[in-house]
Amino acid sequence: MPDPRFFPAPEPIPVGELAGRIGAALADANDAGRLVRGAAPLDAAGAGDLSFLDNRKYVDDLARTGAGAIALKPAMRRRAPAGAALLVCDRPYLAWARATRLLYPLPRVPRPGLAEGCHVDPAAVLGPGCQADPGAVVGPRAEIGARCRIGANAVIGDGVVIGDDCVIGAGASLSHCILGDRVTLYPGVRIGQDGFGFATSDEGHETVVQLGRALIGDDVEIGANSTVDRGSGPDTVIGAGTRIDNLVQIGHNVRIGRGCVLVAQSGVAGSSRMADRSVLAAQSGIAGHLRIGEGARIAAKSGVMRDVPPGASVCGVPARPVREFFRLVAAWNRQVEARNGGK
Amino acid sequence: MPDPRFFPAPEPIPVGELAGRIGAALADANDAGRLVRGAAPLDAAGAGDLSFLDNRKYVDDLARTGAGAIALKPAMRRRAPAGAALLVCDRPYLAWARATRLLYPLPRVPRPGLAEGCHVDPAAVLGPGCQADPGAVVGPRAEIGARCRIGANAVIGDGVVIGDDCVIGAGASLSHCILGDRVTLYPGVRIGQDGFGFATSDEGHETVVQLGRALIGDDVEIGANSTVDRGSGPDTVIGAGTRIDNLVQIGHNVRIGRGCVLVAQSGVAGSSRMADRSVLAAQSGIAGHLRIGEGARIAAKSGVMRDVPPGASVCGVPARPVREFFRLVAAWNRQVEARNGGK
Amino acid sequence: MPDPRFFPAPEPIPVGELAGRIGAALADANDAGRLVRGAAPLDAAGAGDLSFLDNRKYVDDLARTGAGAIALKPAMRRRAPAGAALLVCDRPYLAWARATRLLYPLPRVPRPGLAEGCHVDPAAVLGPGCQADPGAVVGPRAEIGARCRIGANAVIGDGVVIGDDCVIGAGASLSHCILGDRVTLYPGVRIGQDGFGFATSDEGHETVVQLGRALIGDDVEIGANSTVDRGSGPDTVIGAGTRIDNLVQIGHNVRIGRGCVLVAQSGVAGSSRMADRSVLAAQSGIAGHLRIGEGARIAAKSGVMRDVPPGASVCGVPARPVREFFRLVAAWNRQVEARNGGK
Repeated sequence: MPDPRFFPAPEPIPVGELAGRIGAALADANDAGRLVRGAAPLDAAGAGDLSFLDNRKYVDDLARTGAGAIALKPAMRRRAPAGAALLVCDRPYLAWARATRLLYPLPRVPRPGLAEGCHVDPAAVLGPGCQADPGAVVGPRAEIGARCRIGANAVIGDGVVIGDDCVIGAGASLSHCILGDRVTLYPGVRIGQDGFGFATSDEGHETVVQLGRALIGDDVEIGANSTVDRGSGPDTVIGAGTRIDNLVQIGHNVRIGRGCVLVAQSGVAGSSRMADRSVLAAQSGIAGHLRIGEGARIAAKSGVMRDVPPGASVCGVPARPVREFFRLVAAWNRQVEARNGGK
Repeated sequence: MPDPRFFPAPEPIPVGELAGRIGAALADANDAGRLVRGAAPLDAAGAGDLSFLDNRKYVDDLARTGAGAIALKPAMRRRAPAGAALLVCDRPYLAWARATRLLYPLPRVPRPGLAEGCHVDPAAVLGPGCQADPGAVVGPRAEIGARCRIGANAVIGDGVVIGDDCVIGAGASLSHCILGDRVTLYPGVRIGQDGFGFATSDEGHETVVQLGRALIGDDVEIGANSTVDRGSGPDTVIGAGTRIDNLVQIGHNVRIGRGCVLVAQSGVAGSSRMADRSVLAAQSGIAGHLRIGEGARIAAKSGVMRDVPPGASVCGVPARPVREFFRLVAAWNRQVEARNGGK
Repeated sequence: MPDPRFFPAPEPIPVGELAGRIGAALADANDAGRLVRGAAPLDAAGAGDLSFLDNRKYVDDLARTGAGAIALKPAMRRRAPAGAALLVCDRPYLAWARATRLLYPLPRVPRPGLAEGCHVDPAAVLGPGCQADPGAVVGPRAEIGARCRIGANAVIGDGVVIGDDCVIGAGASLSHCILGDRVTLYPGVRIGQDGFGFATSDEGHETVVQLGRALIGDDVEIGANSTVDRGSGPDTVIGAGTRIDNLVQIGHNVRIGRGCVLVAQSGVAGSSRMADRSVLAAQSGIAGHLRIGEGARIAAKSGVMRDVPPGASVCGVPARPVREFFRLVAAWNRQVEARNGGK
């Protein structure tokens, strides 16, 4: 059961209704009336809790769980403890996602209104139902849609446009950018500052004024302390539904498609493009002026120095097809062993 | 044409005058009186805009551009569309840099004065013409030069010294540091906090008080959410004119020379030194207590474990001369292919 | 001598007393009454300063130093300049750590009280002797122990619990977390925000509500702009005495043991565990759902894709035992040279 200090207890919901709303089938219809009162992982769940098993790595927790209800795949049914209501589905993690949102509907705007100690410029426009927390700063000519939350000490720069139902995390800062609807920026995110733009002469580095914007699509989420520079002339663009993790760097003029995933500490250098649904795993980087095809996957710690075709999976520095990478690792293993044998 | 929401329209300037001021020669003197009214990339520029071509990768955009004026290299003249005024020069990107600054002179201090809601300690000293935005905090005994802008919710610690014409980004924080003139810190930069200093005993990790400062030279720029720790006894030093990108880490006692470039997500461990005009590319790291020679270049994703001689270019983990690195990659490629053939 | 602008001059202390308090033996008892008035590195120390030599790389500085007192290993005695008081010990860096804390006892709470311009919710509880700097925000139901400092523009979210004697750096933000005693968070740290949790359906990425907390143990330090996500259901846990450097990422459900060290720009992916006293060096990463054994050491720039046994040292991508890694590097060196020879 989540800590009530941070998560209010849910309204109890009958397991039958819950199964229907999360796309699962109840294994035993007699369980339909049992009540779910919370959600918890297998090793912490009690009789009133829903839990789930997706990653087989945690199958041992299944047999031992005290959960009253469990979302799982058909093949896992026989591993479940007797007495638990089973919500059978092909994608338990997706069912779990939906259940958590039903049980714990987070109020994106818990306390509408302008808090004492926030600074909203008279020449800014805020839509109905917005919340600005203490220390939030909204600059002149900014336009903010309905039901947005501007977190404590966040800074919205001059002229910035924000759609409806956005959440701007504590201490984040925005300038020269336009956000769609339902965008979530986590604390410390930096959007729209100058890209790394200069030309080098004999006198040193001379600044190139960065004349573009950062355009953030609907339903984008950007993790804590990540940075998205504005374009140098073209815009920097993050497509709708893309999820960006913490400490990620997006250079100027980068174009990220729809539904992409960028994991923590990855980076995309200037003017590169990631097509829809492509994935950049943790601590990976894409050099400048490259194109990553639709649905391509770049493994963790990779360094991409060439275009990646649609659907390809690449790994390594320089990045190569994953199968080749593992062949190379096998060759390295033989080299290490040969040297051992030679002793 | 840049978004007028963020960039006010420039004063029109005759192309002949513009060419002279950015170090370019007008291909056709008859164009001298044509007016430039803005700047835009090739694929977005209109008849009133200046554009440029430097990276050959974008040469196809040249033929198609609607730009009224184009800065380009002599060899590119014949690829340009008829009717455009051509500003011929050897370094179009440098010319572009200068043109953007002429056309869009950003006011570094747009609204001089202390905003309501900023907190300037009575024992701090601010020079003439400074701007402190809402939520900016200036601690006791801080000394700030003329015409500085302290961004919204930025924090200037006790005793910090800042030169003239500096810009401190929103939400940045400074302590134990001394900045020169014309320093730009982007949002979320952290300067002068304790370095990672402790000694490990049987009782655990014991803090070493960090007794040095961070000294930031004239004209330095430091990107969003980057971190520069103060020295442990010696100072941490960033030389004049050096440019640091986003999410870069500078450890305690590091000394960076003049005119260096550190690209996003790179890091320099404690007590290492980078000589003047050396370059550390994205996601690279330099181990502690090393020396990087003048003008040396460290490629992206490298891990430097030894000193690098002046002028050298290195790559890889561990870093080796770039030519050797590519030879090694070629050997890896053969290993992958050999294994393919052996199937 | 540290800059008096930032470090008040210490109370002078007799070298004999100092030696005793830092665990060193005075080489010459006649020196016991000499006064130490400050601390400085070998190349900057004067007659009133204590200095130290630990890393042999700096032995040349020893002969040249003007320091009046030097902590060093027995073997270094004969390399020291005549006239300096020698504080002999096996671990000079540890002795130095203790000396710096004796000489420069940093007031963790320099100005107790609530500064004008901070925002403490009436439904928050602060212990005695706390300091809240300008712009600090403390949300409803937060509980903060005794003698804590909440830095300027830091944000403490609803219900957050903080122990005694903690320091929350400027601009840091906390939510959904519980901190022990004597925790230090450097500026810009982000604790307790949502982890990177979503399930992907045909409609896109669907959020998984993150129902856990972040639990930060006693004496933990977390460096500037680092991020620690809260758990998804389980908690994210950082064990007592662990030190985390700048720009480090800790994913949801990660469990870090006691006394661990995580160096700058490293990251730990979701649900992985690091046992007590394990070390993750700079720019390294640990993939998700792995276990790192007690006292294991992961070298800089490594990518860990498997469990690491207790006490092991690993290096590379994918990480392998350090000895194997250097064998592999030797093989690479031969390949590069062979190709040279073959020209």
